[in-house]
Amino acid sequence: MYVILVYDMGKKRVSKMLKLCRGYLNWIQNSVFEGEITEVKLKELLSRAKLFMNTEQDSIIIFKSREERWLEKEIIGQEKNDLDTFL
Amino acid sequence: MYVILVYDMGKKRVSKMLKLCRGYLNWIQNSVFEGEITEVKLKELLSRAKLFMNTEQDSIIIFKSREERWLEKEIIGQEKNDLDTFL
Repeated sequence: MYVILVYDMGKKRVSKMLKLCRGYLNWIQNSVFEGEITEVKLKELLSRAKLFMNTEQDSIIIFKSREERWLEKEIIGQEKNDLDTFL
Repeated sequence: MYVILVYDMGKKRVSKMLKLCRGYLNWIQNSVFEGEITEVKLKELLSRAKLFMNTEQDSIIIFKSREERWLEKEIIGQEKNDLDTFL
């Protein structure tokens, strides 16, 4: 399935979350990732995030769509994921 | 249509963008909004954002879906939009 994942984490946990998500999805902006992922892999990502997230302060929101083509994406301004292909 | 809007703006422009988006969509996290909106209203929002955004630094990404039910939403941790009903 195709997902969009956005997180809001305390400063101390941001870089850990960024690194974790990079292993599963494509970074598209600040704290926003997207990509194809299986239910199993998504559960794994979330379990690992829960190990360090502060559930009273932090949040992760996931939008799931069975098909990517059901979502149209429009970007205004800078596309920030250019680096992603090199890292 | 149903949209998810995420923005990444320089500190000086964040509060302006937050206020602008609040007039059109529902705030769900940090710099993330969602909601039903018409094409015309979305264009209006973006035109107004372009007046103050720095297109070399800032970015706005919009995911559009014809139907909200095509997207399933999962939230882990804090739901931050509780206040939204009061503001």
